[in-house]
Amino acid sequence: MKKIDLIVHTRHLYTLQGDGSGYRHDHSIAVDAGKILAVEPTAEIDGAYTAERVIDAWDKLALPGFIDGHMHASLCALRGLAQDVGNWMMHGLGPFEDASTPRTKDAGTRLGIAEAILNGTTTIGEDGKNADAACRFIKQAGVRGNISVRIRDAIARIYEPGELYEFNDELGRKSLEETLGVYNTWHGADGGRIRVLFGPQGADFVSEPMLLKVRQLAKERGTRVHMHLQQGSRETRQMEMRYGTRTIPWLDSRGYFDQDFIGIHLTDALDDEVRLVASRGAGMVLCSGSIGIIDGIVPPAKVFQDAGGPVALGSDQAPGNNCHNVINEMKLTALFNKIKYEDPEVMPCWKVLRMATIEGAKAIGVDDVTGSIEPGKDADIVLIDLHTPAMSPVYAEPMRNLICNLVYSATNKEVDTVIAGGRVIVEGGKPLTFDLEEILSEAGREADKVAAGASEKFWQINGVNAVYAREGKL
Amino acid sequence: MKKIDLIVHTRHLYTLQGDGSGYRHDHSIAVDAGKILAVEPTAEIDGAYTAERVIDAWDKLALPGFIDGHMHASLCALRGLAQDVGNWMMHGLGPFEDASTPRTKDAGTRLGIAEAILNGTTTIGEDGKNADAACRFIKQAGVRGNISVRIRDAIARIYEPGELYEFNDELGRKSLEETLGVYNTWHGADGGRIRVLFGPQGADFVSEPMLLKVRQLAKERGTRVHMHLQQGSRETRQMEMRYGTRTIPWLDSRGYFDQDFIGIHLTDALDDEVRLVASRGAGMVLCSGSIGIIDGIVPPAKVFQDAGGPVALGSDQAPGNNCHNVINEMKLTALFNKIKYEDPEVMPCWKVLRMATIEGAKAIGVDDVTGSIEPGKDADIVLIDLHTPAMSPVYAEPMRNLICNLVYSATNKEVDTVIAGGRVIVEGGKPLTFDLEEILSEAGREADKVAAGASEKFWQINGVNAVYAREGKL
Repeated sequence: MKKIDLIVHTRHLYTLQGDGSGYRHDHSIAVDAGKILAVEPTAEIDGAYTAERVIDAWDKLALPGFIDGHMHASLCALRGLAQDVGNWMMHGLGPFEDASTPRTKDAGTRLGIAEAILNGTTTIGEDGKNADAACRFIKQAGVRGNISVRIRDAIARIYEPGELYEFNDELGRKSLEETLGVYNTWHGADGGRIRVLFGPQGADFVSEPMLLKVRQLAKERGTRVHMHLQQGSRETRQMEMRYGTRTIPWLDSRGYFDQDFIGIHLTDALDDEVRLVASRGAGMVLCSGSIGIIDGIVPPAKVFQDAGGPVALGSDQAPGNNCHNVINEMKLTALFNKIKYEDPEVMPCWKVLRMATIEGAKAIGVDDVTGSIEPGKDADIVLIDLHTPAMSPVYAEPMRNLICNLVYSATNKEVDTVIAGGRVIVEGGKPLTFDLEEILSEAGREADKVAAGASEKFWQINGVNAVYAREGKL
Repeated sequence: MKKIDLIVHTRHLYTLQGDGSGYRHDHSIAVDAGKILAVEPTAEIDGAYTAERVIDAWDKLALPGFIDGHMHASLCALRGLAQDVGNWMMHGLGPFEDASTPRTKDAGTRLGIAEAILNGTTTIGEDGKNADAACRFIKQAGVRGNISVRIRDAIARIYEPGELYEFNDELGRKSLEETLGVYNTWHGADGGRIRVLFGPQGADFVSEPMLLKVRQLAKERGTRVHMHLQQGSRETRQMEMRYGTRTIPWLDSRGYFDQDFIGIHLTDALDDEVRLVASRGAGMVLCSGSIGIIDGIVPPAKVFQDAGGPVALGSDQAPGNNCHNVINEMKLTALFNKIKYEDPEVMPCWKVLRMATIEGAKAIGVDDVTGSIEPGKDADIVLIDLHTPAMSPVYAEPMRNLICNLVYSATNKEVDTVIAGGRVIVEGGKPLTFDLEEILSEAGREADKVAAGASEKFWQINGVNAVYAREGKL
């Protein structure tokens, strides 16, 4: 008998292999050196292996760890400060982001990623301004990182309506240098568990030469471009003023879309544009919660899927979502699309589970190593407690209700165990690789500083939350 | 110093008094004999009272216990068996409901109510077929019951399209007799904590004489009518065939709507009809999750509110929602309405919190005793753990982010303590007045029986979930 690191015995295992849920009954997962060795009936695994550690998950549901395709965890110390507001950027986030320091972003990064992990996420698609801290914490925590570093050469200032964003070579040079620095340090780190993507902020915020250069550099390095795409009317106006066309046809005419491109949001994309991007082999990330809160819009993920493109879920940011919880994103994605199409059959539960796992992995290009439970892949596994009100009772016949209840009834309370790269990192809902108490305290200390720094501008801007605060509504 | 039963010390207390959130900082709640005696600054309470029990809720958020205006907990043993399906009643619930027995409904009733309580609900608006079991468990658990007993005189059988439902006097007589039996046994029971309402199933399922009689009997007994209202096209077709008009104008012409009427769903009501019902002083219950899953529709609660009517939230049923969790209903209500109106400012968090508490209490007629934390009302209080990722960090200035995070970020994981009628019934997330293990086991045993009984019909009907089950999607 071969001695291995870990065996997980399951009654209800969803491997997500194939085109369905890949359900297996009374199967066990053999794990060694971080990888899945075998997934076979329990008796066979027991006959072939002994293990350092055995987890009896008989009263749990075993799934691939969740994929979060797009997060700004660095904003997490600003949770709950930007929602219910028409102008999210200026009236919501603005005063608080301006009062943030690198320490605020560090604290937020740790809080947001910790939250995601406790909610069952094992692939962290962090995008933004704090890639180094994100990579360090991801490595410490033991999860997979799919890190996109923000590239932008438009000057950040207030622009008049009708004014084009002003590009600046020096800004672009610095931005690219930072990205390459993060790439060189972190791409392939932690035994390949961290990958670094190139993240031009959007076609409006990055000049044409820079966009083309970024794509070329990504190609040369075998990594992907991760970019906000057709985000809203502000982007459209800039593109039309500058190039006389909308974002997607313009980028496509420059050969921008292929299997190495990940488009985020597509909030404002026309159906034909969505189909075009999908037809080029690109992936999409759908941030149901955040776009619902910020724009009141359901992005065209169904159109993207119907055109054959893979879609990942993303939790975006805590000021405007307000949580990093893929189970929440699954539920909202199913429900929002039923409402958008006024059709209860749209986006069934198994489909959104696929978006949270294997389809999401394909969309962001990590399906070679995660997103399903099969031999050769990293052992990224989440165990959901079935002995809970939300998951009870369990039906195995005539239809299994497990995914139905995971998506529509469970929250995050049922996430019991998280295994990432073969390592148990959450057990009984408690983290084993980071100090949650310290992370919560640190975020609290940073919040006090942000509050002090943001106060004057918050009242001056007098957005809707300032009105509510004054009226005693909050 | 007066000796009382309970003092709850809070840092962040939302009383829900007034027209906002009624926030109080560093206040304490004095409770005696199940009622709130005083809500004052902590020093004053400490100076005036000593208590049998003191709860230090410094790191928690204190709120009124949630109001669930409309539940069918009796269906909870069928959780997760009816979603993602176009014909919910026939292709979803049908085969499983047919295979249910009174024991299934008892087990479901306990599971659903237990779930709701653990999620912070202290007023259970159970509607349906198992009122006696619901009342017994509500009394045991210690929460408030607002029980509606189902009245119907239409024969339950398959009708051809275009065929009028057939009324039967004997069915009606029996149904009314049962209702009066439950009313006589339970109305005012448990020191007035249980109220019994009259629940005609819908204007299509109940004959005109019976509808009028029910209303008269409710008036005579000082209770309310709780009724599904303008639920869908099936109802409209019946009403137009029978009476030549739609439900709401027809009922209004018979003087049906006033402050003693609670309309459920209004899924299919026209805006003018919604305004009419609201203008008569009636209340509405909005079941965001269930109507989203079952119909892909966002009911017109905003129109009802804009016309001055109060709206409660309701979790409806676990086969089609799939949970009894008012925090979930708050989040879905805010987000669905933002999407419906494509406006992020619609349904801000404080407004849905009011729907879950004081506004909901008004809508279903229990605001004399609950829905806010103020002297004279029952001590129905929920404590939310702030020392959690979803509720962190806490901002007190320049805006408080507590309600924002409760609605958009929290799930049910943060519900720590539930106090109902002055009694601590949940502590550290664990129930003190019922045996959750036994309830889960019982539901599991019933599920096995339902599965066996439903199987043949499930495959025969061959609804979309049967297709998914066969294809290995579930």
